[in-house]
Amino acid sequence: MILIEAPEESLRYTFGQHPPLAVLHPGDVVRTSTEDCFGGAVRSVEDLPSRVCDWFNPVTGPFFVEGAEPGDTLALHFAEINPARDWGMSATFPHFGALTTTHATAMLHPPLEERVWRYDIDTTAGIVRYHARRSAVTVDLPLDPMLGTVGVAPAAGEVRATIVPDAHGGNLDVPELRPGTTVYLGVNVPGALFAFGDGHARQGQGEVCGVAVETAMNVTVAIGLIKDTPTPWPRFETDKRLLSIGSARPLEDAYRISQHDLITWVSNLSGLELLDAYQLVSQAGQSAPGNVCDPNYTMHAAIIKNLLPGLTPYGGIRQRLRALAAEPR
Amino acid sequence: MILIEAPEESLRYTFGQHPPLAVLHPGDVVRTSTEDCFGGAVRSVEDLPSRVCDWFNPVTGPFFVEGAEPGDTLALHFAEINPARDWGMSATFPHFGALTTTHATAMLHPPLEERVWRYDIDTTAGIVRYHARRSAVTVDLPLDPMLGTVGVAPAAGEVRATIVPDAHGGNLDVPELRPGTTVYLGVNVPGALFAFGDGHARQGQGEVCGVAVETAMNVTVAIGLIKDTPTPWPRFETDKRLLSIGSARPLEDAYRISQHDLITWVSNLSGLELLDAYQLVSQAGQSAPGNVCDPNYTMHAAIIKNLLPGLTPYGGIRQRLRALAAEPR
Amino acid sequence: MILIEAPEESLRYTFGQHPPLAVLHPGDVVRTSTEDCFGGAVRSVEDLPSRVCDWFNPVTGPFFVEGAEPGDTLALHFAEINPARDWGMSATFPHFGALTTTHATAMLHPPLEERVWRYDIDTTAGIVRYHARRSAVTVDLPLDPMLGTVGVAPAAGEVRATIVPDAHGGNLDVPELRPGTTVYLGVNVPGALFAFGDGHARQGQGEVCGVAVETAMNVTVAIGLIKDTPTPWPRFETDKRLLSIGSARPLEDAYRISQHDLITWVSNLSGLELLDAYQLVSQAGQSAPGNVCDPNYTMHAAIIKNLLPGLTPYGGIRQRLRALAAEPR
Amino acid sequence: MILIEAPEESLRYTFGQHPPLAVLHPGDVVRTSTEDCFGGAVRSVEDLPSRVCDWFNPVTGPFFVEGAEPGDTLALHFAEINPARDWGMSATFPHFGALTTTHATAMLHPPLEERVWRYDIDTTAGIVRYHARRSAVTVDLPLDPMLGTVGVAPAAGEVRATIVPDAHGGNLDVPELRPGTTVYLGVNVPGALFAFGDGHARQGQGEVCGVAVETAMNVTVAIGLIKDTPTPWPRFETDKRLLSIGSARPLEDAYRISQHDLITWVSNLSGLELLDAYQLVSQAGQSAPGNVCDPNYTMHAAIIKNLLPGLTPYGGIRQRLRALAAEPR
Repeated sequence: MILIEAPEESLRYTFGQHPPLAVLHPGDVVRTSTEDCFGGAVRSVEDLPSRVCDWFNPVTGPFFVEGAEPGDTLALHFAEINPARDWGMSATFPHFGALTTTHATAMLHPPLEERVWRYDIDTTAGIVRYHARRSAVTVDLPLDPMLGTVGVAPAAGEVRATIVPDAHGGNLDVPELRPGTTVYLGVNVPGALFAFGDGHARQGQGEVCGVAVETAMNVTVAIGLIKDTPTPWPRFETDKRLLSIGSARPLEDAYRISQHDLITWVSNLSGLELLDAYQLVSQAGQSAPGNVCDPNYTMHAAIIKNLLPGLTPYGGIRQRLRALAAEPR
Repeated sequence: MILIEAPEESLRYTFGQHPPLAVLHPGDVVRTSTEDCFGGAVRSVEDLPSRVCDWFNPVTGPFFVEGAEPGDTLALHFAEINPARDWGMSATFPHFGALTTTHATAMLHPPLEERVWRYDIDTTAGIVRYHARRSAVTVDLPLDPMLGTVGVAPAAGEVRATIVPDAHGGNLDVPELRPGTTVYLGVNVPGALFAFGDGHARQGQGEVCGVAVETAMNVTVAIGLIKDTPTPWPRFETDKRLLSIGSARPLEDAYRISQHDLITWVSNLSGLELLDAYQLVSQAGQSAPGNVCDPNYTMHAAIIKNLLPGLTPYGGIRQRLRALAAEPR
Repeated sequence: MILIEAPEESLRYTFGQHPPLAVLHPGDVVRTSTEDCFGGAVRSVEDLPSRVCDWFNPVTGPFFVEGAEPGDTLALHFAEINPARDWGMSATFPHFGALTTTHATAMLHPPLEERVWRYDIDTTAGIVRYHARRSAVTVDLPLDPMLGTVGVAPAAGEVRATIVPDAHGGNLDVPELRPGTTVYLGVNVPGALFAFGDGHARQGQGEVCGVAVETAMNVTVAIGLIKDTPTPWPRFETDKRLLSIGSARPLEDAYRISQHDLITWVSNLSGLELLDAYQLVSQAGQSAPGNVCDPNYTMHAAIIKNLLPGLTPYGGIRQRLRALAAEPR
Repeated sequence: MILIEAPEESLRYTFGQHPPLAVLHPGDVVRTSTEDCFGGAVRSVEDLPSRVCDWFNPVTGPFFVEGAEPGDTLALHFAEINPARDWGMSATFPHFGALTTTHATAMLHPPLEERVWRYDIDTTAGIVRYHARRSAVTVDLPLDPMLGTVGVAPAAGEVRATIVPDAHGGNLDVPELRPGTTVYLGVNVPGALFAFGDGHARQGQGEVCGVAVETAMNVTVAIGLIKDTPTPWPRFETDKRLLSIGSARPLEDAYRISQHDLITWVSNLSGLELLDAYQLVSQAGQSAPGNVCDPNYTMHAAIIKNLLPGLTPYGGIRQRLRALAAEPR
């Protein structure tokens, strides 16, 4: 287990360009922490993000993985994603979210009111408590920690703000990035330069207002590398499912990307001819939005692994990374 | 229990315009049947739909509900949706589906191959069996019967093909329309003139190839009417959840409609102020696509009813309709 | 010349379903009138459309054309489109327009202010005069009369509100439907049942607020019929250009439809192989939005006819209709 | 006049990150050259771009402008854009273009055929000659030279491939960037770091196949700086018109951005209240697509300057830059 501190001044707001925070090797298990999307600056309902934040969505990293080269696939097994605070924050933010005028869906309306909500996080009880701002209503929601953002340095020499989801990962906001999930990302630059952050105590599917229950996280991740195997779009593997992630606008293109990737992936793994795989996914596939508010929208496509033989991707690296992460230290 | 036969010549391919198949009253429980989306004409893998079908997606109905007037809400509690055959059919169809050139997403490619798959339906074992066409692979999937299409006559004097989902309902293809679901539809014309069909032994979320496991169904439905209460978009209620359905293009507009409807509905039912409801749904809401292949795309937004008090809509009519449907006959 | 009166009670708000206003024959030249999109009810800036109008966008018709059958093409040569009043009206309308929350692009904003503008129309000077509402500014714009809406009864037994543009025509709002333009529409039902209306003294490209300078028009149109020749989407022919019209959402699908139709049309007329036509239109083609506010958005694709031989479509019927319309009476 | 050579090894494929090719000052007039989008590697119809090109769309630059700071506006007056060769190339490229499956609009079709077209450019006659590949047809089109790509370093530390159009500029492919056009770009980093390239001998509106008549250009540009004046999206000024450029997906969002920017710009310059400006642009505005094939789609919104007083933006800097560029040397 390698412990890596991520002090505030090391936080990054783009994928690409930055020098590595640490150099890692395949087989390493790393424990570190992530700040919330406000960099920790929003702590009470009086802290309007547009006033107290200059930048949003910091990530911890980037990490250089020895031996990673373009055309390889990086495997990140997230063994632990655990709230580091007993509170989380959410907000409406001007010109952000699915049901308001934005930078791109530009309208003549003034922005919606900027408002902040503070949640209690009780990791023992497994509860996230919502407090209404205009009434005394509280609602207990299940704690369901996840990371909104994970990615590598983009292809083609690009550097992208961490808020942008695309083929390199980024702010996917797919709740299935829970503890126990393995993430696969295609490597675009030597060392891969992966980073992650944007912990959510929980979020709704689609994250309609654009902000989840944002909190700092303690994270343990095991690093794997599959040589000479490209991965076109981010993929997840859980105990039960394979997921393909697509990010684009309009939302149907995110859907198309995710379905296209899952169908071709299932076809390759199982030996099903392509249209036969198209048909099977049409009946057995699952789908949901990640977020529908970022510069790209995100959807996932998923299939149950035990439906048919062969759906153990990347030579079963997930099993090895799980074992590594579970070793006593 | 009113038994209504639906012979082939009574099937309808539009919402609106047709004389009623029967006149019903609030409180009636009806048992009838629906044909599959091919009108039963596709029975083997040799039956290419483009050759054997003239029209697609017939519905049973329309039914005139005494007392229903514009501004009311029709409640349809589907107590039974049960496969009437031990086989179902699916297909790729030229210029239809999410991953192919279509009428609207017009491209210069020739259409994908038209191919038919025949599924075995075993209602006792609860299994739908897929057979690959280019290999000997079979896959057993859980039987999960549903109706793809339910709707009323549209507003503004329009008549819409049954394949079109919109504010009046139509081909929503939302798998949550299972046995036990209550559907709420705003009434646009005297008598509402509702109809339903397009049974699926199961379907994937998004129905990516555009065709589910299509089969005939036996259907039992209890009819309710909520006077002087408009419903802007189709809504579902199940034992656990409230769902709002949006249909539009691009897919983010279907998402927006469904989220907007759910948020305003939760706000109205619970008394939460609007932005407080926006925030709560952002963290607690669920979302998934219906189909992403029709003239409009469909998404649902959902919330768990027992999260907070008040989420018993329409005066609890669902409980009464369930009781009615459960009465011995 | 056949004179047809179109009294208010004969105006129609859907394409499809209505009995014909008159029966016409190929070769007929008809003179009639159209009301504005408000049915003439908005006459001063105090007349808010949401208060004084029940329905929008009436059309004159439908007209039954003897001999027209599905699979034929109707040709309508608009020889005259002339303002019947010396004033026109425009407005912002709640939940309508490109830069505001709408029924489909649903947001949590309250609607923009509803406001009415009254324009002076001077047909002699060729001027439409804008008067600002919050200052004394006036602007003289060139008079450029056009019809926003033209269409036939839709296919598949559908009936569509006149505000909807689709393959059957409808509210295209393409300013190139000026005096002197020939419109081609595929026939879906016996008699075609065409209708038109929604005169604009002028409009901007895209009609961003959703409402043009709306006015009543006197219209002269010559009727032609091309047997056994289908037309998939509305097409226009002017002295200089061929135009293909696509209507869909998202806007890129309207673009795709219009480009796909123009490319295949040019390929068929000129004998250019398909990708060669794709290449030529890529360099020589013209494109602009019709409106970006209706249930479907509209774009046109156009090419200059004298670029290459063969671009005289439908056997040159436009020349014959022009001659007919120009005959002295 | 400052002459700057741009040898092949100095060409850049991203906006952001690169050291300046030269340091310039407001008031400088620069003469340089640009390579075509293939870096000059496609010279005959046998040179398939996917085989002979590693990278696409090189730009000349970046140029550091002394005194430019975030919050300023850079003005670039393009006095000359002149083909440097008597030939230009175009192509269909796999997974690129509006009417084919792409990276984002992912479909199961194989890509369209990759094919190259070679054009003759005759600057004296003002003609670009198309040669069909599958027949002997040739077509003479008007020469209409333009630059497809112009931009500055993006905001937020991002680095974007030159093929991407966004708020910083990039591959706008708006044909109105002809000789005589002034471009305004908001400055995001000290020195602005502008660059340009992607000369087209001409292109159709929308550039449907994704590739114009690509050629090298000689370019003369005069540099201006407007301090403390932000510009949110690229804007153009010509002798007759003001243009606002929006780049996004779906295409309606590009439309919305461009219209929103033009309306607020006109409101600010003329003193018209916002909804009054919305109304005026709705009737007087012009709109057309740039390209509908890039990672973002582009549309422009335009208005005639002499419609009303005040439409001389940025203190009339365009006049001064025109005069500078016209000085004899």
